[in-house]
Amino acid sequence: MDGIWNGKYARGTNLVTSSIIRDLLHLTQRPAVISFGGGLPAPECFPTAAIQAATDEVFAEQPLAALQYGPTEGFMPLRAFVAEHMAALGAKVSSEQVLITSGSQQALDLLGRLMIDAGAPILVEDPTYLGALQAWRPHAPQFITVPVDEQGVQVDALERILQSGVHPRFFYIMSSFQNPMGVSLADERRHALIALAARYRLPIIEDDPYGELYYDGNRPTPLAAIDMQMHGELRHVAYLSSFSKLLSPGMRVGWIAASPSLLAKVAQLKQGMDLHTSSLSQSVVYTACRDGLLAAHVPNIRQIYRERRDTMLKALHRTMPRTVRWTHPHGGMFIWVTLPRYFDATALLQTALEYDVAYVPGTCFYANGGGSNSLRLNFSMPTVAQIEEGIARLGTMLHAFAHEKAA
Amino acid sequence: MDGIWNGKYARGTNLVTSSIIRDLLHLTQRPAVISFGGGLPAPECFPTAAIQAATDEVFAEQPLAALQYGPTEGFMPLRAFVAEHMAALGAKVSSEQVLITSGSQQALDLLGRLMIDAGAPILVEDPTYLGALQAWRPHAPQFITVPVDEQGVQVDALERILQSGVHPRFFYIMSSFQNPMGVSLADERRHALIALAARYRLPIIEDDPYGELYYDGNRPTPLAAIDMQMHGELRHVAYLSSFSKLLSPGMRVGWIAASPSLLAKVAQLKQGMDLHTSSLSQSVVYTACRDGLLAAHVPNIRQIYRERRDTMLKALHRTMPRTVRWTHPHGGMFIWVTLPRYFDATALLQTALEYDVAYVPGTCFYANGGGSNSLRLNFSMPTVAQIEEGIARLGTMLHAFAHEKAA
Repeated sequence: MDGIWNGKYARGTNLVTSSIIRDLLHLTQRPAVISFGGGLPAPECFPTAAIQAATDEVFAEQPLAALQYGPTEGFMPLRAFVAEHMAALGAKVSSEQVLITSGSQQALDLLGRLMIDAGAPILVEDPTYLGALQAWRPHAPQFITVPVDEQGVQVDALERILQSGVHPRFFYIMSSFQNPMGVSLADERRHALIALAARYRLPIIEDDPYGELYYDGNRPTPLAAIDMQMHGELRHVAYLSSFSKLLSPGMRVGWIAASPSLLAKVAQLKQGMDLHTSSLSQSVVYTACRDGLLAAHVPNIRQIYRERRDTMLKALHRTMPRTVRWTHPHGGMFIWVTLPRYFDATALLQTALEYDVAYVPGTCFYANGGGSNSLRLNFSMPTVAQIEEGIARLGTMLHAFAHEKAA
Repeated sequence: MDGIWNGKYARGTNLVTSSIIRDLLHLTQRPAVISFGGGLPAPECFPTAAIQAATDEVFAEQPLAALQYGPTEGFMPLRAFVAEHMAALGAKVSSEQVLITSGSQQALDLLGRLMIDAGAPILVEDPTYLGALQAWRPHAPQFITVPVDEQGVQVDALERILQSGVHPRFFYIMSSFQNPMGVSLADERRHALIALAARYRLPIIEDDPYGELYYDGNRPTPLAAIDMQMHGELRHVAYLSSFSKLLSPGMRVGWIAASPSLLAKVAQLKQGMDLHTSSLSQSVVYTACRDGLLAAHVPNIRQIYRERRDTMLKALHRTMPRTVRWTHPHGGMFIWVTLPRYFDATALLQTALEYDVAYVPGTCFYANGGGSNSLRLNFSMPTVAQIEEGIARLGTMLHAFAHEKAA
């Protein structure tokens, strides 16, 4: 009898299918499996005591701010905190230029709804963040892909696309420690990209959830900061980030910083979507940040993840066949592995699960297909011991295949 | 320079405009104004101490459930609690038939995205909930309106529309203590509506945020319960409700109960929208409910709101000109006032603000216009003393106009 409802679904909804990651998570829940498939922060990185203390303060100081309806744009003290945070990154925006979202995922959904018509061209990195593809596929855009190398997106390739007369609605880029590859856009490419945006009047959605998670050198400068430096305002860039990787993803608190007129439009849409983001989550995040939790806590996360990244890089070096290549990220949560061309990482996943190890096949991250010989490894969630053991299992499996191939 | 973004907005977004209520809230924030315009729960109705205690329990018992990423469908213990809650209302669903949303507003957004194509007919009450119109207008449906009287929607009028050969995607109804009119669908009409749904294979979105807020007699039986009683399953009805009016709207926790196949589709969409609803909000709501907060607390809310409703009804009776009519709700948060035809309640609002009193013009709630001589009064937020004084101000103003008219 389900025909009563499913005979009446809207057209775009047939483009939404269960994500491979989602299905994978079910498969990898067997306790014996060491999974490099997820993208979760390590549970030992949650500042539970500090968040609990912040919650107590919220109820003692202003419980109504946590329990009553609030403004669609977000809890004003949190917006002001985010504005200060962005100023410290070189992008001096006002509180009114910050809108709080229910995680960065909602920011992607909001901007997709605001900017995409069916068939309209949008530019994405190749590969790019799977969650963005999921958010935007129901709108049926024409995805135009721009290749990415160890220095981030190839800005000259982007320029050739724009020269060809395409008028994309926007270019979506995860500028630092990109999901899935772990690479960051090189400094000179950042400046070239903003100059290109100015020349072609190109809107840029900069997604930066991992920027604070750097393990070598300095934090990369956001494109938003370069845009402000070159143009005196946030003109080309809508900047997205979140507290998910720094405090807790479960609270679902992210933000968009953008021009006031863009934010006004976003706020109108958001009002019809969920009225506003959880007031409880917002006031707890604000209070924790006001009390200095980011500065106190984020260095711990960096230390834990740095060790895991180092462990994974060493284990890969020790165990992988010579024909396998991988990225060397300076931050974030992911390493990207490229197998010889004759491997199909999706088909191989079944075998990997027999070896009790899991990853995400790279092809998931390509808007228009490709990347079948690549895969994404997460190093934030597994322990050092699990990384050693899991990479050893992957290595054993790949050597067995290489051996088979040679025989 | 905003043209860089706003020249590229999607087509539907020009249909989104700032809501009149939203703009109104700004106007009515002057401290002297007694506002009957909002739809907020009274702050003195928040069980702050109990919610704080539940939060402490969450951090003591399972902090990770509050801080880590969670399943898109919601926190399983909360889904199970909601399923029990629905069984007590006569709709015995399984936990798997419950999906947690970021407030009921997100449920409306989800179902609109799932079910509406541009130009597709959908049926709504006339007048209906403004938030539903806001959520759905960007999809540009053809709104077909069904008149509402003191007994709720006119089911015979609905039947005539269906007989005429219209194939609507769904019928949206707020079955109990409707926003904006305060009326409830009469029992015999409830049964007639479900029979009609079966005959015409009509999907029904039942929105029931106010059902527990009854001040006379019993809680109305949800259409979902009648559907299950007649068909042995949730076949025609997708049931929406929320904890906003019972515990706290700021936590943004609502739910959809529906057939498994419909929920699977909804979950796919929700994943791309915000991954999941705030884990912190969900685990706090669950823990508070597990500890029996609803049974302990909701009777207090009923008592406070009953007194306010009674006060407003008496004040209207005492002060309104004879030509004015109003509804006599048995629950909810609103009374609906109908002025003589020559009044324009939108134009009159400016004058009302001069008298330091505010309401929402009725025309906001009509999908296709109309109702210009009607207005909505909220009685949950203002105190008894504010209700007395505010209605007296409205009465003085209307008498002055009636006098002017007569002169």
